[in-house]
Amino acid sequence: MRIFPDPNIAIPLPKGFSWGTAAAGIRYKNRDDLAVIDPGCEATAAAVFTQNTFCAAPVRVSREILSASKGRIRGVVVNSGCANAATGEQGLRDARAMAEELGKCLAPSGKTHCLVCSTGTIGVRLPMEKVLPAIHAAVANRSESAPGFLAFARAILTTDTREKYAWKVLTIAGKPVTILACAKGSGMIYPRMATLLGFVATDAELPPETAQTLLRYAVNRSLNCLTVDADTSTNDTTILLANGASGASIQDIDSADGQCFAEALTEVLQCLARQLARDGEGATKLIEITVREARSYEEAHQVAMSIANSNLVKTAIYGRDANWGRIVCAIGNSGVSLEPERVRVRLGDLLLFEKGEPVPFDEGVALQVLSEEFVPITVDLGLGENSATAWTCDLTEKYVEINGAYRT
Amino acid sequence: MRIFPDPNIAIPLPKGFSWGTAAAGIRYKNRDDLAVIDPGCEATAAAVFTQNTFCAAPVRVSREILSASKGRIRGVVVNSGCANAATGEQGLRDARAMAEELGKCLAPSGKTHCLVCSTGTIGVRLPMEKVLPAIHAAVANRSESAPGFLAFARAILTTDTREKYAWKVLTIAGKPVTILACAKGSGMIYPRMATLLGFVATDAELPPETAQTLLRYAVNRSLNCLTVDADTSTNDTTILLANGASGASIQDIDSADGQCFAEALTEVLQCLARQLARDGEGATKLIEITVREARSYEEAHQVAMSIANSNLVKTAIYGRDANWGRIVCAIGNSGVSLEPERVRVRLGDLLLFEKGEPVPFDEGVALQVLSEEFVPITVDLGLGENSATAWTCDLTEKYVEINGAYRT
Repeated sequence: MRIFPDPNIAIPLPKGFSWGTAAAGIRYKNRDDLAVIDPGCEATAAAVFTQNTFCAAPVRVSREILSASKGRIRGVVVNSGCANAATGEQGLRDARAMAEELGKCLAPSGKTHCLVCSTGTIGVRLPMEKVLPAIHAAVANRSESAPGFLAFARAILTTDTREKYAWKVLTIAGKPVTILACAKGSGMIYPRMATLLGFVATDAELPPETAQTLLRYAVNRSLNCLTVDADTSTNDTTILLANGASGASIQDIDSADGQCFAEALTEVLQCLARQLARDGEGATKLIEITVREARSYEEAHQVAMSIANSNLVKTAIYGRDANWGRIVCAIGNSGVSLEPERVRVRLGDLLLFEKGEPVPFDEGVALQVLSEEFVPITVDLGLGENSATAWTCDLTEKYVEINGAYRT
Repeated sequence: MRIFPDPNIAIPLPKGFSWGTAAAGIRYKNRDDLAVIDPGCEATAAAVFTQNTFCAAPVRVSREILSASKGRIRGVVVNSGCANAATGEQGLRDARAMAEELGKCLAPSGKTHCLVCSTGTIGVRLPMEKVLPAIHAAVANRSESAPGFLAFARAILTTDTREKYAWKVLTIAGKPVTILACAKGSGMIYPRMATLLGFVATDAELPPETAQTLLRYAVNRSLNCLTVDADTSTNDTTILLANGASGASIQDIDSADGQCFAEALTEVLQCLARQLARDGEGATKLIEITVREARSYEEAHQVAMSIANSNLVKTAIYGRDANWGRIVCAIGNSGVSLEPERVRVRLGDLLLFEKGEPVPFDEGVALQVLSEEFVPITVDLGLGENSATAWTCDLTEKYVEINGAYRT
């Protein structure tokens, strides 16, 4: 399975969008750390945010702006290197100033709404004297090209080792519509009705309420099924911008076009979820956990996330140890009412556990499955017809090393 | 703070109890791996068990026996090296055979009830041809001495690096009463209304219902406030045996004697909880998290456990990084309704966060606190008058190393 996009395939670009970046010198040296998206006009915007009570200033400000603007947004500004979280009143003022500065750059009157995101260390103030000029620089160098998009995808990274992006082109009412998305995040990842930082650009035309419903639908089936370390960050935000430049309009998620778009958006975000898991801090493997035969989607999801969050499952897979006992243990800890005798556990195609007992298996075949970069685990609960999938990575010494020394 | 007991202090022994061990060769070479407790007569027994749905055969069997015996038990047998979990019907038969074999050894008629515990790898069957003779050997070599107790405390270990035990002597109705306890556990530790393996022996006389209430009370304030890796095992069990040999009787937990005993038992188990956390797999530090000024004990506990379960907090403390932003983030993820502006966070005596903002602090002092083996974190929520404490350890490369290679 190919996890990251093939660099030899041209990235399709949604019409009218441009991306710009600049080096503000916030924390990292010799790289761009500030980025803007310009949808080319006032666009429909939808967003999901972290549920962390200590949500960062940009989350609070973007929530306010999204509500005040009734979902019509002129642009987005993002910085890496500083989360602007736990920074008190001054942090709120700084986040508002960033959004307003972008508004001034993109609309001559300045009377428009922009959103703002930050990611990086908690509890440190933004160096606004560097950030504000960098917004101007990023707007000035913005471009509608694939390199422009890739520079954006790179500027938002922190401990990530690479850009993560995905796309889908579909046809709505005979017109091509493009969905192009990127995301950052490799630690502090356990989205509770939210995500890391994710940005989705589409040239479909969407009413704000439809956009919000579509984004929520797709996030619940993708970024909300992802965990690296079961820690929801203070800054998680995913924003969808729809500028309507394709001329194709989707009014309702329940229409055929709406369903088509919902599935495409879900696929794009699932593709990002897999990339995010694989690029988890210190990870060597992407683990995909599919739970089937559940009474409901929610119960399947709960079991899948319980396995995905188990440090013991994650270390065993890192050690290429087919220690299915830990998977069974994690299933038993999910809180879902189960009948242990009906549960089956598979590693790849290899059956490991059935009827409450271990199944003798070929350790060589298990080792082969565990030696791959992509490790699929399947659990059948034997209780119903619903399925869910969760994504995570293995837990390695490198994770500890990275996180033992992040701030200092 | 002294975490482990001083080996130069004599261990007080509850009257009438003897401990025996033997080498059954289940998994480990050159060490005892089977152990028995003989209270000297039919004793009152109480127990708390894992809430894992895939609970192991000995847990199911001990639950049945405790219920059938109405809380009157002749002895306990424990093995390390094999969990006898996910072993189907045969596993249940094996667990029953272990309990019955001990009964035959301790009572000539064999018509008595014994409890059974196992710990070790999941999904492997016990070598009963080795286990049954070892029970006889352990009974034969049992002793009422401190070395006998220490040998028991050692025989039950798996990845633990040392014996963990604690005691308290109190006076009830003018008579000395001893509580002596030991426990094993260093990974897969997140007791949900249960614990790892713990054994408490007392020569107080307790009616079974009082014993159960006392044990539940004390476990909720000690072993249930402990996490190493947020994974509840399939085998967690804590057993209290009260043989009445001191001649001091406690009928009711609400009496003055009952309260006195409850506090002593809680102290003993809290002392064990600290030892268990410090001996967490790969740990270099014991972290004690106290949450104060909460609306209720439950909410304080929930916040404390959210911090204790954060891999990011645990790796930061390992790296001696005063990254309080991760503590604040974990508080915000607890699910408890909070007012961020009222929250204060302290590392040792050092104030780090207040009024929604970082407090400038001396990094040198923080480094000093983080360089100790015992790291106390205090969080004031500013909402009420209730407190709770949780214990955990740091997360290190060694944890990954141990758990990447446990089974194979």
